[in-house]
Amino acid sequence: MTITLEQTRELARQLRVDSIRATTAAGSGHPTSSLSAADLMAVLMARHLRFDFDQPHHPNRDHLIFSKGHASPLLYAMYRAAGVIDDAQLLSLREFGSKLEGHPVPRLPGVEVATGSLGQGFPIGVGMALAGKFLDRLPFHIWVLLGDSEMAEGSIWETFDKAGYYSLGNLVGIVDVNRLGQRGETELGWDTAAYARRAEAFGWETVVIDGHDIEAIDGAFALVTLERQQPLLIVARTIKGQGVSFLADKEGFHGKPLDQDRMQAALRELGEPVRRTVCPPKPEDLTPSRQPQPAAIELPRYTIGDNQATRTVYGDALQAIGIRPDIVVLDAEVGDSTRAQKFATACPGRFFEMYIAEQQMVAAAVGLSVMGRTPFASTFGAFLTRAYDFIRMAAVSRASIRLVGSHAGVSIGQDGPSQMALEDLAMMRAVHGSTVLYPCDANQTAKLVRAMVDIKGISYMRTTRGKTPVIYAPGEDFFPGGSRVVRQSPNDQVTLIGAGVTLHEAILAADTLASEGIPVRVIDAYSVKPIDRQTLQQAARDTHGLVVVEDHWAEGGLGDAVLDAFSGNGVLPRVVKLAVREMPGSGTPAEMRDFAGISARHIVAAARQIAMSSA
Amino acid sequence: MTITLEQTRELARQLRVDSIRATTAAGSGHPTSSLSAADLMAVLMARHLRFDFDQPHHPNRDHLIFSKGHASPLLYAMYRAAGVIDDAQLLSLREFGSKLEGHPVPRLPGVEVATGSLGQGFPIGVGMALAGKFLDRLPFHIWVLLGDSEMAEGSIWETFDKAGYYSLGNLVGIVDVNRLGQRGETELGWDTAAYARRAEAFGWETVVIDGHDIEAIDGAFALVTLERQQPLLIVARTIKGQGVSFLADKEGFHGKPLDQDRMQAALRELGEPVRRTVCPPKPEDLTPSRQPQPAAIELPRYTIGDNQATRTVYGDALQAIGIRPDIVVLDAEVGDSTRAQKFATACPGRFFEMYIAEQQMVAAAVGLSVMGRTPFASTFGAFLTRAYDFIRMAAVSRASIRLVGSHAGVSIGQDGPSQMALEDLAMMRAVHGSTVLYPCDANQTAKLVRAMVDIKGISYMRTTRGKTPVIYAPGEDFFPGGSRVVRQSPNDQVTLIGAGVTLHEAILAADTLASEGIPVRVIDAYSVKPIDRQTLQQAARDTHGLVVVEDHWAEGGLGDAVLDAFSGNGVLPRVVKLAVREMPGSGTPAEMRDFAGISARHIVAAARQIAMSSA
Repeated sequence: MTITLEQTRELARQLRVDSIRATTAAGSGHPTSSLSAADLMAVLMARHLRFDFDQPHHPNRDHLIFSKGHASPLLYAMYRAAGVIDDAQLLSLREFGSKLEGHPVPRLPGVEVATGSLGQGFPIGVGMALAGKFLDRLPFHIWVLLGDSEMAEGSIWETFDKAGYYSLGNLVGIVDVNRLGQRGETELGWDTAAYARRAEAFGWETVVIDGHDIEAIDGAFALVTLERQQPLLIVARTIKGQGVSFLADKEGFHGKPLDQDRMQAALRELGEPVRRTVCPPKPEDLTPSRQPQPAAIELPRYTIGDNQATRTVYGDALQAIGIRPDIVVLDAEVGDSTRAQKFATACPGRFFEMYIAEQQMVAAAVGLSVMGRTPFASTFGAFLTRAYDFIRMAAVSRASIRLVGSHAGVSIGQDGPSQMALEDLAMMRAVHGSTVLYPCDANQTAKLVRAMVDIKGISYMRTTRGKTPVIYAPGEDFFPGGSRVVRQSPNDQVTLIGAGVTLHEAILAADTLASEGIPVRVIDAYSVKPIDRQTLQQAARDTHGLVVVEDHWAEGGLGDAVLDAFSGNGVLPRVVKLAVREMPGSGTPAEMRDFAGISARHIVAAARQIAMSSA
Repeated sequence: MTITLEQTRELARQLRVDSIRATTAAGSGHPTSSLSAADLMAVLMARHLRFDFDQPHHPNRDHLIFSKGHASPLLYAMYRAAGVIDDAQLLSLREFGSKLEGHPVPRLPGVEVATGSLGQGFPIGVGMALAGKFLDRLPFHIWVLLGDSEMAEGSIWETFDKAGYYSLGNLVGIVDVNRLGQRGETELGWDTAAYARRAEAFGWETVVIDGHDIEAIDGAFALVTLERQQPLLIVARTIKGQGVSFLADKEGFHGKPLDQDRMQAALRELGEPVRRTVCPPKPEDLTPSRQPQPAAIELPRYTIGDNQATRTVYGDALQAIGIRPDIVVLDAEVGDSTRAQKFATACPGRFFEMYIAEQQMVAAAVGLSVMGRTPFASTFGAFLTRAYDFIRMAAVSRASIRLVGSHAGVSIGQDGPSQMALEDLAMMRAVHGSTVLYPCDANQTAKLVRAMVDIKGISYMRTTRGKTPVIYAPGEDFFPGGSRVVRQSPNDQVTLIGAGVTLHEAILAADTLASEGIPVRVIDAYSVKPIDRQTLQQAARDTHGLVVVEDHWAEGGLGDAVLDAFSGNGVLPRVVKLAVREMPGSGTPAEMRDFAGISARHIVAAARQIAMSSA
C-alpha cells in the first residue's frame, strides 16, 4: 500500500536521522551528501520504485543505482526503513566485515553494482535499460541517483548520448544538485537550467524541481510511465546538509561525520522519527520475453597450415556461440576491425553498437551482466585503456564481462604506436580475479572464446591483426590456466616462451637453434593469467634458462607473469625477457618486431647465449 | 601574402591528390577521411592559420591539432604544400623510419602532440588554450580538426565543458562531419544541427557550414578574431572521399588506400594540381607575458619521529616549488584530499581546477607541457585509471607530465575498494619511459616532488592518505632509480623490501625478527621504476631470500618490479611476494592491511619461513 505524502515526509526525516547516526557511529562517511537527497529517495522508495523486498530478484522489478555512491548512508537508511536490516546492522557502517561498506557493493543484497568511482552508475544503467527494453521486453525502470559533481565526467555524456540514441524511456536520472563539491562550489553551482539544457540537447526530456518539495518530487516521478520512449532527467535543486541548520549549504562538511555533540544537536533539530516499515509498491507480475532453448554450439574449425587472423576467428566464434540466447555483444564502432561485425550481422537483436565510447561500452556490459546476460565487448586493445576505471570497478561489482582487444602490439605495423596495444596485458593482469588469454592460432582462439562464456569475473582476450599459421587441430583443448608445450626433446638446453604472435617467432627461432645443435623447448603460454606455473617450473628444472618473448612493454605482461611463476618457492631459473622497450613507429609488422627485439633472430641470440654460458 | 580563394581551391585539389598518392604509395592509410577535410584545411592553411614555417617556435604562433589523427595524409600534404617536405618524403608515409607515421607524432617538427586515439586532440587543445589565455597572455589560437565519430567520446564533452567554463575564446573546433565511420554511418550521420545544439548547451558559439564551400569556410574562420571570449565550434557538413566520384559518400572505403589503377582514375578526375608553395599568414610579433626569475626553492623540512601524511607533504612541496613560474598544477575537484589545494591557494593563477574530469585533466597537462610549462596533475590514484589512454598517449606525444595519485591501497581503510588505488603501479610501470615513485616519509616525499620537476617523460608519485612516521632527515637525498637500505647487519638472513606504507610494516617486522634472533635487511624501494637493481642484487647475494610487500594487487607492481631486477642474467633469488589478493572491503587501515596479508605479522611469518628453511 502506497504511503501518503505526509508519511513520506516522515520517512525523509527518518532517513536523515539514520544517515547521521550511521556516519557518526562509523566515524567517517558522507552525512551531508545523504541529507540533500533524502527527500528524493523517500518519495521514490515509498511511492514509485517498484520493488518487492520479499522477491528481490523479481524479473520485472525496478532497479535503483546510487551513482553518487558516497551517499551510501542514505541507501542503508532506506534498507533500514524497509526492515531489511536492523539498527545494529545500520550502525555497523564501514566496520571491518560489514556488508555496509563505505560505498555500495553487491555484497549487500539488492545492490547490483558497485559505485564510488563517480560517473559509472549512470552508464551502467544504460546496459540494464538496454536489457529491459530490447531483451527482456519488460516495463521496469532503472532509476539512477546522480551527484552534481559527477556531471563533469565525460562518461556521463556518453550515457546521455547513448540513452538518447536508443530511446531508453526506461532510464531515469535524478541529479541531486546540492551545489557543493568536495572543495567548494561545483562547476555549475545551482545552475539547474544548464544541466537541463545539456541533457535536452542529447535528446532527453528534463524537469527541474525543488528537491525538497515532496509534492514536486512526486509529480516529477509520476512522469515515469510505462509508455515513455524518451529518457528522463530530473534536475533537483537541493541543499547539502538539508534538515540541519548548521550543516545546510555550509562548506567544510563534505565527507565529514558529526561528532557526538553535533550529532545530538542535529537529531534534536530533526526530531525523533516515527519509525514505520515502508514497503515500496510491488512490481507487476510479468515475465521476460521467452528465450529459446539453446542448441549445441558448433565452433568453427580451421585446417592446420592455413593462415588466419585470430581477430577474425573471434568474429567467427562469436557467431557460433551466438546460438546461445544469453550471449550479447558490444563494440565501439570498430566492428569491422575487431570482427564483432560478424555477430552484429548474424544476431542483430543482441548486438549493441556503442560507437566510439569505450567507457560506456564496458559500463553497458556490466549492466547487461547484472541482468543475467553473457556480454562480450570489443575494441582495439589499445583503446580498452580508455575504460580502465570501469574494468577495475567491474571487478568490485563482481560482474562477469568478457573483453576482447584486437590489434595487439607492434605487430599491427604501419598504423603506429597510437593504435598498438602495448600495456593491455599489464592493465588486465592487475584486475582482481581477472583471466587474461592471448591465443596464437585459429582453433585455439575458437576454443578460448568458448571458454570465456563460462568464466566468472573479468576475462580478457588479446587478438592479433595479421594472419598467423594454424598450428593446432580443431579437436585440441585449451583452457584458462593452461599452456601448451609445442616443442620438446629430452636434451632441451633452453626454454622459449611466447604467446600469440611471438609464439610463432619462438617456433622459427627453435628451428634455427635446432639446426645449430641447440635443442629448445617451446611453450605456448596462451593463458597469461592464470599462468601455468607447473609447466614453467618443469621447464626450469629441465633446461638452463627461459627466454620469454612478448609483443608488449617489458613491464607487467607475459615476462612478469612468467617471473611470478617462480615467486614463493621452487626452482629459480635464469629468465631473459624480450619485450618492446623503445617507442615504435610505423613499418611492416616484421620490421616492427625486429625493431622491438622480439623477432626470431633476437630469440635465437638470447637462447644461444644461455646455451653457451651453460655449456 | 594571403592567397586568393581561387588559389585556395587549387590548393585543396593538391591536398587531395597528395593524400591519395601518399596512401597508395604506403599501401595503407586513410585517403577518404583526408579528402573530406581538404577544403577546410586548405582555407585554414592559406588564409587563417598564423604560422611561420621559418619560425616554427614563434611564441605567438597558432597551433593546429589533428584530433582525427587518421587524416594524417592530409596533414602531410599540407607540409608538402608549404615546402617543408619534398615529394620523396611525402611518399615515405608509413615506411619504417619515416617521420610520417600512420598517425601524427611529434617526431615530425610542427606536430606538437600525438593523436590517433580519438577524442584526445581536442582536450589537449584546452591545455594549450589555457596557457595562451592565462599564462602567456598572447592572442594566438588553437585550431583542432575533429572527426564526427570521435564526438561520441566522453572526453570531447569534458572539453566542451571546460572550454566553456574557462571561456576559451582562443579554442576553435572544426568538426568534419563526413557521416561515415569505420563500419557504416556514424551515430548522428549528417545531423549537423545536433552537434551544434549540444555544443551550444555547453556555452560554445557554433556555426554550421558546407565544408566544401570555400567561401563559407572562409567566412566561418573569419569569426576567429582576437577579441573572442567564447570558444567556437565550426560544424562542417562534408562528404567522405569528396572530389573523387567513386569514393564520395561510399561505404567500404574507410582506411583503404587505392590501388594503382584506382589511384590513376582518381588523379585523372582531380586533375594535375598547379603546385605553388603556400605560406600561411605570419603571426604577429608578440612575446609572452614576462615570467619573473625564479628564486631558489626551499623545500619544507620535517622532524624525524613526527607523523605526517605523504599526500600532505605533496601539497607543501608543491607550494615550495611553486616559486618557479613554469610550475602549473591541475586537480580533479579533490584538491582538499590530494592537498593540491595548498598550491591553488598559494598560486591561484597557475592552478587549474578541472573538476571531476580526469581525462581532460591529463590532456590539459599534456597541452601545458607542449607550451613549455611543468605541469603536475593530481587525483586519487584509483581515479587516474580513468585517464590511462591519455597517459599512454602522453608518452607517444613525448610530453613531460607529472601525475600524483593519493589514497594508495587498502590503507585508506573505511572508504572501501572503489577508492583504493590497487593497480596504479602496474598501470604506470607499463607506460613507455615512465618513472614511478612511492615515498614512505615526509622528507623523502618533498625531495622526490622536487626531483619530478626535472624528470622527462611521464612520472608518477603515489601518496598515502594516513600519516606515517618521518624516518629520514631533511638533508638526505632521494632520486629516481634510487633505494635506501634502512636496516642492515653483517648476518642478515632475509631481505624485506617495501615502499610507502609497507616500508613501515617491514621495519616493524624487522624489529620483531631481530628480537627472535633473525637479523634482516630492510630496503626502501621508493623508486619502483626504475628500480635499483644493484642494491636488490646485492641483497640477493647477501641473504637467503627476499620478501617484497606492497599495498597493491599482486600483479605488475613492486613485486614484479623486484622480480624483474633479476631477469637478464644471474639466477633468480627466492622471492616471496606479499600483496593484496582478495577483494578488500571497509575497515581501519590496520585491519585492511592485516586482511590483505601485508601487515608486519605476515612479513614476519614469511621471513621466518625463509630463515628456517635456510638454517
